[in-house]
Amino acid sequence: MPIFFEDVEVGTVEQFGSYEVTHDEVQEFAQQYDPQWFHVDADRAREESPYGGLIASGWHTAAMTMRLLVDGHLSDAATVGAKGVDDLRWRVPVRPGDTLRIENEVIEKVPERPERGLVRARTKTFNQDDEEVFSMVGNVMYLRREDGPVTDAGDNEADDVE
Amino acid sequence: MPIFFEDVEVGTVEQFGSYEVTHDEVQEFAQQYDPQWFHVDADRAREESPYGGLIASGWHTAAMTMRLLVDGHLSDAATVGAKGVDDLRWRVPVRPGDTLRIENEVIEKVPERPERGLVRARTKTFNQDDEEVFSMVGNVMYLRREDGPVTDAGDNEADDVE
Repeated sequence: MPIFFEDVEVGTVEQFGSYEVTHDEVQEFAQQYDPQWFHVDADRAREESPYGGLIASGWHTAAMTMRLLVDGHLSDAATVGAKGVDDLRWRVPVRPGDTLRIENEVIEKVPERPERGLVRARTKTFNQDDEEVFSMVGNVMYLRREDGPVTDAGDNEADDVE
Repeated sequence: MPIFFEDVEVGTVEQFGSYEVTHDEVQEFAQQYDPQWFHVDADRAREESPYGGLIASGWHTAAMTMRLLVDGHLSDAATVGAKGVDDLRWRVPVRPGDTLRIENEVIEKVPERPERGLVRARTKTFNQDDEEVFSMVGNVMYLRREDGPVTDAGDNEADDVE
């Protein structure tokens, strides 16, 4: 049985991982989606970058975080996507050779429609030195097992646009 | 000459694009980073998904938006990365066959350090039907051409963590 909106509890904290960040994948992602020199030019990055070497695109870090979330939780959940993300922050550079893991905490449930609800969860990504490299608050739509009452969604920061 | 912090003007609006969303790329990205069934299983998506067919991972849409930003603007700018993003919203599903373009508007400049400043810009992504499919507010660090005064960054939502 998948995890429905009714099954999610505010305050639940889960940890998932790991994801090995390789030099090749850092460059492949950046060549395709974020070809700024500090993501793709290892020599120049070593000599000129304030980070002292090649770092992963922030969007690659977000994507690797998503993969850990899907493998650890979302693949077992009755979700139909997310509305968006708040407070996305790149806190510490992610580098080739790093190993990432995540921590996910449910912070709010909003029963916004009879057939589904919104789950707000804070996801933090850590490297092998337990530095928090990335964080965000996701707004994910979970189906309800049975239709239920709807509360005012006025306290929900996410837009309701789909 | 690259674009420095001093060169950026609040209120400037630029448009860039286009990016063709292919079926293969939608599936490749999702297989690697977001293998939820409505992103990777075309048959099931057509039959069961509330979206009526395969849709791109939201992180893929963010990544394609980034590529348009880099090609159109950031590759000419003296930036050293971004601190994060606020109010990231997936508004309309992105589907194979779509063609994306973006609009970028500078909304705030914060001269937070003598050697660099923060530029907050709202980026909107549109499809070929001029539907706004995605939006976010980025917090990008621009180098200054010359060291300058620093103002209180208390009104800046972004953390100062690097």
